[in-house]
Amino acid sequence: MQRVLVKISYNGAQFLGFQIQNQGRTVQGYFEKILKRMHQKPVRIHPTSRTDRGVHAKEQYFHFDTDLNIAPNKWQHAMNSALPDDIYVHEVSLIDSDFHCRYDCVGKRYRYAIYQDAHRNPFLAHLKTLEAHALNIEAMQVAARHFIGTHDFTSFCSQKTEVESKTRTIYESRIEVTEDGLDFIITGSGFLYNMVRVIIAYLLEVGKGKRQGEDIPHILKMKDRTLVPHTAPAEGLYLEKVYLSPEQLKKDFGETIKIHTKKSSQI
Amino acid sequence: MQRVLVKISYNGAQFLGFQIQNQGRTVQGYFEKILKRMHQKPVRIHPTSRTDRGVHAKEQYFHFDTDLNIAPNKWQHAMNSALPDDIYVHEVSLIDSDFHCRYDCVGKRYRYAIYQDAHRNPFLAHLKTLEAHALNIEAMQVAARHFIGTHDFTSFCSQKTEVESKTRTIYESRIEVTEDGLDFIITGSGFLYNMVRVIIAYLLEVGKGKRQGEDIPHILKMKDRTLVPHTAPAEGLYLEKVYLSPEQLKKDFGETIKIHTKKSSQI
Repeated sequence: MQRVLVKISYNGAQFLGFQIQNQGRTVQGYFEKILKRMHQKPVRIHPTSRTDRGVHAKEQYFHFDTDLNIAPNKWQHAMNSALPDDIYVHEVSLIDSDFHCRYDCVGKRYRYAIYQDAHRNPFLAHLKTLEAHALNIEAMQVAARHFIGTHDFTSFCSQKTEVESKTRTIYESRIEVTEDGLDFIITGSGFLYNMVRVIIAYLLEVGKGKRQGEDIPHILKMKDRTLVPHTAPAEGLYLEKVYLSPEQLKKDFGETIKIHTKKSSQI
Repeated sequence: MQRVLVKISYNGAQFLGFQIQNQGRTVQGYFEKILKRMHQKPVRIHPTSRTDRGVHAKEQYFHFDTDLNIAPNKWQHAMNSALPDDIYVHEVSLIDSDFHCRYDCVGKRYRYAIYQDAHRNPFLAHLKTLEAHALNIEAMQVAARHFIGTHDFTSFCSQKTEVESKTRTIYESRIEVTEDGLDFIITGSGFLYNMVRVIIAYLLEVGKGKRQGEDIPHILKMKDRTLVPHTAPAEGLYLEKVYLSPEQLKKDFGETIKIHTKKSSQI
């Protein structure tokens, strides 16, 4: 058996999400259909993370095991020929069978794109979120920094989140001014359910002067989601980068950063 | 009765086209559904042109007649609240009952957007057409100019075109270099079925060195569509501007231009 690693991107607008459903368009659904046809039997794919309905991925990985002897560029061509135009395979590589997309993933970067306009732009539908209200970007920038570091994110995730530990390390949390608005960029060891969408909803409240950035450390300490009632819409959210090794993460954020690894606990 | 003029834009990606169908998403379908609910009876809308499946409009107009006494900004709000996020009403105005969107339209501008990349970009799906082949943009630019003027466009439209005269005047035909490729911009008195898509298909052949720009005058004279076999895909095509008066057109292209008006023949 050979383990195969696939690097993809997709426009989430017309998908029910990454994870396969009984019916409807899903990213996993398309790949497993192609692989089943090629293998004449079901083949499961394992992504680094399952993005929600409407969420995009500029960079996402999955792996699968195969008994077919196919070169990486042939895999790429076979998949791209059969995929719809909102998914693309950028790279395929053959990897060791002890590598696992989910357990070897040590970090992810998300981008949340907002455009500011008095009017809705139909060409940005599903790609950016409209915010018509004036925003104090400087206040949002200062507030965003409060998330950097290791915290329990109970207050900033969906109450439906079911994981043992809600502690995550954030390496980067900042606002980038764009041509038509702003992007929020956040890189962390991992993210809880709806975490990025809850954080950006809070930051937008800060931008409107309704909430204060300096309250964030206290809200984190309280571990109480009712203190942060909103969740921003999925459109505008991009999985932008996936870190598959501690070395990659150290290269971007320094040798001394805290690395969370899921590997040891799973083997 | 009051005639109402509505200026809209829409992302054509998820529409079967402008014109209403028995089923499926259409731009006309959404507006007539809203107007029927407001009037408690069917109300027909009249666009300047019916765009095909997948074709976008940055600027498009339609009119309808109403016996309701509603202010322009209330019309706009009522429609935008009920529309999906890929259509937007920019402006509503009350106009004379002798104005007709189709017959008063004296010109239109289309834009065809192409991106150049070795790889398909899922975020440009439906918005720009991919051309992976290297293009001689200078040759395309020179070729594009051959369409300017008054010509019979039989060779450059669908063979299914059923109109009395295939003579149209082109005021502007040029290539604009963009960040990731090029746009073809063409403004004319009117356009035949598939005309922009056939012209850009020919220009792309010129860009690849397969056809010659200087053959265009001869091909126009031959009035034979079999001389130009290709039609570029609908994605990437935008109705960009609609000219609703000769004055508007003269302002952009000079006082001495030839104006085609459909008005006299229709009254």
